[in-house]
Amino acid sequence: MTTPSAGPNRVADSGREHRRAVSVEEHTELVASLLAPLRIRPADSVAVGDALGRVAASDVCAPVDLPLFRNSQMDGYAVLASDLARVPASLRVIGTVAAGPSDRIHLEAGTAVKIMTGAPMPENADAVAPIENTTYDGGVVTVTVARRAGEYVREQGSDITTGTVMVQAGEIIEPRHIAVLAAVGLSHVQVLSRPKVAVITTGAELVAAGSPLRPGQIYDSNGVALAAHLRANGADVVAVHRSSDDADEFRRILSDAVAAAELVITSGGVSMGDFEVVKDVLAPMGGHFGSVRMQPGGPQGTATIDGVPILDFPGNPVSTVVSFIVFARNAVREAAGLDAIESRSVPLAHSITSIAGKRQLLRGKLGDDGVAAIAGPGSHLVAAMAWADVLIDIPEDTTELDAGTEIQVIPL
Amino acid sequence: MTTPSAGPNRVADSGREHRRAVSVEEHTELVASLLAPLRIRPADSVAVGDALGRVAASDVCAPVDLPLFRNSQMDGYAVLASDLARVPASLRVIGTVAAGPSDRIHLEAGTAVKIMTGAPMPENADAVAPIENTTYDGGVVTVTVARRAGEYVREQGSDITTGTVMVQAGEIIEPRHIAVLAAVGLSHVQVLSRPKVAVITTGAELVAAGSPLRPGQIYDSNGVALAAHLRANGADVVAVHRSSDDADEFRRILSDAVAAAELVITSGGVSMGDFEVVKDVLAPMGGHFGSVRMQPGGPQGTATIDGVPILDFPGNPVSTVVSFIVFARNAVREAAGLDAIESRSVPLAHSITSIAGKRQLLRGKLGDDGVAAIAGPGSHLVAAMAWADVLIDIPEDTTELDAGTEIQVIPL
Repeated sequence: MTTPSAGPNRVADSGREHRRAVSVEEHTELVASLLAPLRIRPADSVAVGDALGRVAASDVCAPVDLPLFRNSQMDGYAVLASDLARVPASLRVIGTVAAGPSDRIHLEAGTAVKIMTGAPMPENADAVAPIENTTYDGGVVTVTVARRAGEYVREQGSDITTGTVMVQAGEIIEPRHIAVLAAVGLSHVQVLSRPKVAVITTGAELVAAGSPLRPGQIYDSNGVALAAHLRANGADVVAVHRSSDDADEFRRILSDAVAAAELVITSGGVSMGDFEVVKDVLAPMGGHFGSVRMQPGGPQGTATIDGVPILDFPGNPVSTVVSFIVFARNAVREAAGLDAIESRSVPLAHSITSIAGKRQLLRGKLGDDGVAAIAGPGSHLVAAMAWADVLIDIPEDTTELDAGTEIQVIPL
Repeated sequence: MTTPSAGPNRVADSGREHRRAVSVEEHTELVASLLAPLRIRPADSVAVGDALGRVAASDVCAPVDLPLFRNSQMDGYAVLASDLARVPASLRVIGTVAAGPSDRIHLEAGTAVKIMTGAPMPENADAVAPIENTTYDGGVVTVTVARRAGEYVREQGSDITTGTVMVQAGEIIEPRHIAVLAAVGLSHVQVLSRPKVAVITTGAELVAAGSPLRPGQIYDSNGVALAAHLRANGADVVAVHRSSDDADEFRRILSDAVAAAELVITSGGVSMGDFEVVKDVLAPMGGHFGSVRMQPGGPQGTATIDGVPILDFPGNPVSTVVSFIVFARNAVREAAGLDAIESRSVPLAHSITSIAGKRQLLRGKLGDDGVAAIAGPGSHLVAAMAWADVLIDIPEDTTELDAGTEIQVIPL
């Protein structure tokens, strides 16, 4: 506890601040323009086996044909179809060819070569008699079923030809893609690099999970929560730091974060209190701090240091996550090459009242009747956030909505 | 190339084999019973920050209330609502309380305490006057708007009370859950352990991706493909090995795999050729090798060594993946605590003919008209597998299906 020092208007001293409350759209545009450079980023080369879930940076073309060579579809005997014009036909067996490296063998009329599935077809052979339709005795095979030319033969390139696009630029690589990339012998694939993001939570009251609490302290949930949301949306979280309200400590941590990351997200220290470390440090460096006409998540800041964008969210746990979802999630997804998550329209399950002049983002749960709010507007309702499917997005100018009204919801 | 050695019936010498072709349902049941013990497995304790995408092993209850203590929802002044019965009201400011550890302070009538968002409410205070509705001068704050008792105060436990279930057993942990787990101060959470699976591909013809090929050799795609499918379905792939057709080499690799894994999947070496290393090694040890009435994926084997189930899939790349999807995917998902992926019914976009007596699993793509087959029944069509959304599941006894017929498809 200290005595009041400067009074409520101290923060207005910084000439850099704009205190006009902006709309959600205006702030979203500002964040999008700050994060736009993240979209142009170098590709990573990753082992095909590690590419699951990554986004192809460019079209991936087959460097070879598949099958690589003409081969047998069955265990049996490679033959000339013309030798089976009359069955049963007895053919002299001149060798065996298994799958694997082997010398080429040339088939003459009246002979057969025992062949395993996947083994290269002997030259001149044009069909395979499956082993089920043969009997073997003393170097001679008797084939009981006639075959057309080409039957049970897999022609070179019949699956895929050299140059065919196997995975398109922008596709998310799934197990089925990995199978074909490996089959054509690619060891590595070019994927979009994940945007590197550092998270800094601030607040003298924050304590790491698992530690004992003193009176007035709370657990720091914003770091792990933001990291989880970032990872789930394609980011590479390079650091999660916690700073006290000490400006020098915050500056040190911020400097490390800017050096390591392409985007820094902070939580806390942006509103109208006496100890707003994020605002106090960044506003004199050109950061913009102000209010967005929304609840929760009103106080917001942005800055750029050494070309690295910094998004400054308020510190209440729900405000932090709502800020990420409303302002940053789609920009991070686009940088990662993932599709944006769009709002959609659903009916309200019950009537809702809201505050004029503030866009409300209520936690909602989808049901058969539409979407129901599961908590009020309080920015501290973490549990409700955990149980919600969507944010119910109530426009600024709306104060009353009847049950059944179509309303925009943002999927969580 | 070698001369034919034993002829086609050699493999029938093993008394352990059952050569009767079984139905897909029968083999699915056999695999499910072999893998059933995987469902009863110990939980892992993981850091909350690493729990994204894991499955909660048990209900996770809040060990504390949230908010942990009664605190302010706004930056402003903690007051007695009764002091604001008439506004403007001037109150003597007796201190400041910020978020963070602090001594308790007791509010008397006629006084106010400057308070920051999240800071503990002074004893006896019952409302917060937001800073926007105040002016401060010489140790006295003038409040211009009346407040009800409780206004802008977050009561202890108003978000979550001790003992409340935050995440239910079996739920997949998402970012929104991580936020609440961290907020209540949990450092670790109990999650279902991922089934440990080893993969062994066999075949003298196989070469690692990126290596030069000799005639008759092909790239080994089954290892990375199976690993990717396994990971995507909740497994922990502990090893991916490649064996030649040499029985001693395969035995050595298998022994390592059994020691490290809870499930071993092999590809290749199970059909009717002369060199079927998986069958040759495992049939004498009690393995069952036979044929399933399906295409692709007909030859199948199962075995158990030291209590570890072994699934033996055929080696053609499409057969391998189709075998995994039809027989193993849901069993692995259940062991991992994930929901099974169920078939669903869609109309056929065109007519299809099929072979009587074999269940066909064609690669299909979903479109506006229903599902269209994008390749024939060939087991080597890896590219078609990469482009497919579903497997079209054509029953054994069906030979012709008209466009528009409802057909079961298995999502890929």
